[in-house]
Amino acid sequence: MSRRTRGRQEWDVRASTLARNTTNTIRNVVENLVVEPNPQKEFIALSIGDPTTFGNLNPPEQVLEAIKESVETAKSRGYAPAKGHLEAREAVAEYSAHQGNVTANDVILSSGASHAIELAITALADSGQNILAPRPGFMIYQTLAEGLGITVKYYNLLPDEQWKVDIDDLESQIDEDTAAIVVINPSNPCGSVYDKDHLVEILDVASRNHVPIIADEIYEHFAFSGHKFHAISSLSKDVPILTCSGLTKRFLVPGWRMGWVIIHDRHNIFGKEIRKGLNNLATRILGPSVLVQLALPNILKYTPQSFFDDVILFIENQAKSAYEVLRRAPGLRPIMPQGAMYMMIGIQMSLFPTIKNEIQFVERLVKEQSVFCLPGKCFEYPNYMRIVLTVPEEYLREACQRIILFCKEHVDYGDKRKEIENDDVTVTNTIEVLSESDISVHP
Amino acid sequence: MSRRTRGRQEWDVRASTLARNTTNTIRNVVENLVVEPNPQKEFIALSIGDPTTFGNLNPPEQVLEAIKESVETAKSRGYAPAKGHLEAREAVAEYSAHQGNVTANDVILSSGASHAIELAITALADSGQNILAPRPGFMIYQTLAEGLGITVKYYNLLPDEQWKVDIDDLESQIDEDTAAIVVINPSNPCGSVYDKDHLVEILDVASRNHVPIIADEIYEHFAFSGHKFHAISSLSKDVPILTCSGLTKRFLVPGWRMGWVIIHDRHNIFGKEIRKGLNNLATRILGPSVLVQLALPNILKYTPQSFFDDVILFIENQAKSAYEVLRRAPGLRPIMPQGAMYMMIGIQMSLFPTIKNEIQFVERLVKEQSVFCLPGKCFEYPNYMRIVLTVPEEYLREACQRIILFCKEHVDYGDKRKEIENDDVTVTNTIEVLSESDISVHP
Repeated sequence: MSRRTRGRQEWDVRASTLARNTTNTIRNVVENLVVEPNPQKEFIALSIGDPTTFGNLNPPEQVLEAIKESVETAKSRGYAPAKGHLEAREAVAEYSAHQGNVTANDVILSSGASHAIELAITALADSGQNILAPRPGFMIYQTLAEGLGITVKYYNLLPDEQWKVDIDDLESQIDEDTAAIVVINPSNPCGSVYDKDHLVEILDVASRNHVPIIADEIYEHFAFSGHKFHAISSLSKDVPILTCSGLTKRFLVPGWRMGWVIIHDRHNIFGKEIRKGLNNLATRILGPSVLVQLALPNILKYTPQSFFDDVILFIENQAKSAYEVLRRAPGLRPIMPQGAMYMMIGIQMSLFPTIKNEIQFVERLVKEQSVFCLPGKCFEYPNYMRIVLTVPEEYLREACQRIILFCKEHVDYGDKRKEIENDDVTVTNTIEVLSESDISVHP
Repeated sequence: MSRRTRGRQEWDVRASTLARNTTNTIRNVVENLVVEPNPQKEFIALSIGDPTTFGNLNPPEQVLEAIKESVETAKSRGYAPAKGHLEAREAVAEYSAHQGNVTANDVILSSGASHAIELAITALADSGQNILAPRPGFMIYQTLAEGLGITVKYYNLLPDEQWKVDIDDLESQIDEDTAAIVVINPSNPCGSVYDKDHLVEILDVASRNHVPIIADEIYEHFAFSGHKFHAISSLSKDVPILTCSGLTKRFLVPGWRMGWVIIHDRHNIFGKEIRKGLNNLATRILGPSVLVQLALPNILKYTPQSFFDDVILFIENQAKSAYEVLRRAPGLRPIMPQGAMYMMIGIQMSLFPTIKNEIQFVERLVKEQSVFCLPGKCFEYPNYMRIVLTVPEEYLREACQRIILFCKEHVDYGDKRKEIENDDVTVTNTIEVLSESDISVHP
């Protein structure tokens, strides 16, 4: 008995545009790397942005206790409202008082900061519009936006000015279809921490052009001595801001997927529409595990300041020692971070004539020295690599030594060195001089 | 100093199409209800699909223990791979062996079953395409699809045939743009559990028309005595299937947001494209809390069968007693469920001339008897209401008595009764006879 079919005549199941165009730059780059470590040397990964990987950094006991208490409550097992339980949102509001006047009503809990960013982007931007993101910058914006037909346009950060935003470039990227400017501060991968004046400069651009800001402040408070973190929302006079943060980095529990979006809208520019839109979007998958939601008040209240101070001091010391070693590596130019967990290192490719680009540089560094750094391509930023500062001290020290060794083996000053030697200038200084001109040219 | 602006000339921030068009039918309907309980009577909500609300149903101790152990492990704090930790996916594969041959590679963990459904829909359907969903049915499909420009078309279930699929209607809804057929079994809100023959009928339609199936089996194994749950994937010869499930209902921890998608693709019709698409989509927000992921192996292994048996027996007894009472309610026609946690009750609106529709019916039931049932409109199915069977026994008993009272006070047989009385037929029988013709007419 044959029946007329109304569907397709044969099987032809295609993945959606969203599924095909949701790509992850870091993963794509890393998956295509040829990374076979030197079997003679222990492998050291300076690539992993998960501070818990090596077991040297752990959440405070108060955080774990809060979960154990949460498990015992019946409420932790049931559904929460789509934007999160009130007591959890109240705790986040209080914790985020440095961002400006925040109430529970301004907080939407999310399944990690990635979900917070997804909520922010999808609330503000439509297919055909664009968002501006920093280059170099964390690539989750591309992952989340492009599958939805939202273009990510990049504005440049200035390596010679501690990765400040190139304000003119930022403004030049704005067009009628710009739905939001993403500001990552403190920065992954740069480790920059912007001062008040610079944040006001960025706000001025947003204000003049009437573009809201998505503030990625997942590294909030991660500022080394001499630097201070300011929430951009605390400085905004009119620009409406969606700030994304969470427990992830500061409480050393990235796997718990506890994030949030905070709505800053003092002049009622977002109005009901964006609030309602965010609430609508929150109903799609209902936010983070209630187990963690109900632990939030205790986590945010009882984690001692000393815990945060100790973690930052550790990272700052790591940054300093890596910087001190690597600044003497021939052909490299580390840029000392001001916060967060990372350091970007410029590679003067012209001094490594046998190595094609920074991708081959990190590949050969693995092959010869078993040290793995993320190539700049992961952040749309060639001629650089990023190292992670949260690894154990001895790993970082050993890795830096091996990087030096690698550079010494491959550096070739060629004519430049000869010229310079004639001029009676020391090589080390020369590299620093050369690097200024050689590396800061943007891709 | 004035600068040319490149963006908008004034503030005009609009929510995206996705944000505006992500709507939740249940919420929209419920928010617009006028529900002011009778202050003389304790309020009883038979509306809440969260089995943990009243504290009478709790997860087994093994489940809570598994979390406490997970908290102690360092690994539970770090990031997991986007589709989930291998050991967790292996545990899900083993737990899901009744679905057919499943390996860890076929499993993608998700932040609850809603996220699993989002992954399945967004992997298969593009803007401009459609998916077919059952009516009455759980409305999350609309919430997730429509904002993305994916239309939800409905196929009818047959109330007089224990909510089986109207196979002809299902097939008639398929067109060239149909990306998937959603099958909810056991059903929310109907409580139906399909037998093998019926599942094969559905598979035949999908096969003939070359349309993949999204199987919503979050109520898997919830079958009352005399009925048996079959995973539709276990019966599929060729149709590729994405099965969505999770801990939510069966383990009584909906708030933990632990779900999964399982890929069934014996004939390699999905091929690499859909697998890759799902993997891509999983990188957006990185799945469920690792705290719960790492507890999964113990949860799935150590929860005793007696726990599941006890819960189902409780719900079945609740269904039976509610059915026995409500079948005698004048003007109502409960349909005895075969599983899950719900019962649909037909309302013979013509016998309630002072009540406009089922929305007003549930509103007045709250106002007069302080009992709240979800109106059929929440499931695109007028003239019905849904009650939840997981509430404590005494609540259900009391609520049913009040529903009877309400019906007796408002029923008006008018001429029909007179005719029937003349024919010497008992009223109860008549209602059942009337209901057949009166209620099964689809909106």
